[in-house]
Amino acid sequence: MVQQQIASDRLSATFAALSDPTRRAILARLASGKTSVTELAAPFEMSLPAISKHLKVLERAGLIARGREAQWRPCRLEAGPLKDAADFLERYRRFWEQSLDRLEDYLRELQTKPREQKKHERRK
Amino acid sequence: MVQQQIASDRLSATFAALSDPTRRAILARLASGKTSVTELAAPFEMSLPAISKHLKVLERAGLIARGREAQWRPCRLEAGPLKDAADFLERYRRFWEQSLDRLEDYLRELQTKPREQKKHERRK
Repeated sequence: MVQQQIASDRLSATFAALSDPTRRAILARLASGKTSVTELAAPFEMSLPAISKHLKVLERAGLIARGREAQWRPCRLEAGPLKDAADFLERYRRFWEQSLDRLEDYLRELQTKPREQKKHERRK
Repeated sequence: MVQQQIASDRLSATFAALSDPTRRAILARLASGKTSVTELAAPFEMSLPAISKHLKVLERAGLIARGREAQWRPCRLEAGPLKDAADFLERYRRFWEQSLDRLEDYLRELQTKPREQKKHERRK
């Protein structure tokens, strides 16, 4: 039960961390390799403290880790929590596949209907 | 560009909606069929207004829809935004697979090491 609650809190922290476009952009940047905070901040029109705040949210959620190298503490991506989030979403796959199927049926219906209507008109 | 921003905002809304255990439990309940708000609220130790607030967050994120039936307005799951969230996470799959591989290597190392040590001890 406690174990379950911790997992649920971790999942909440992961989703909360992902709910911001700047934080998602930081993760995308880190996907191409570990980097310093200054380099990470460069493409954003944002102060370094603002970026640091986002990094703290990502770090608390376990989505990034900071290196222990003496001169610089590079950030790197930690993908474990993303797997848990993906596993959660996977449970709903049949629902979005169903709705895509329904959409396809509907589009097919739309494509056939006008043709049938025209046929009908020609018959008149 | 604007299109991209709208998509990013939708993704932010989806992840924010998923960042709460009550809202995730509501989605899990709706996965087994559409239901009324009262029924939906029953298993939670929460007031109806508190549940309504969560439903509004889910509705604004496009994760649930309310029926238009006269007497009751049942909630149903709308899985489209979950697909977009899953597609986002999918881009990071290689990272969590890599770290699982590394973990496996590490565990294998741990399992072999003591045996080697024992061999070494026997040799002494």
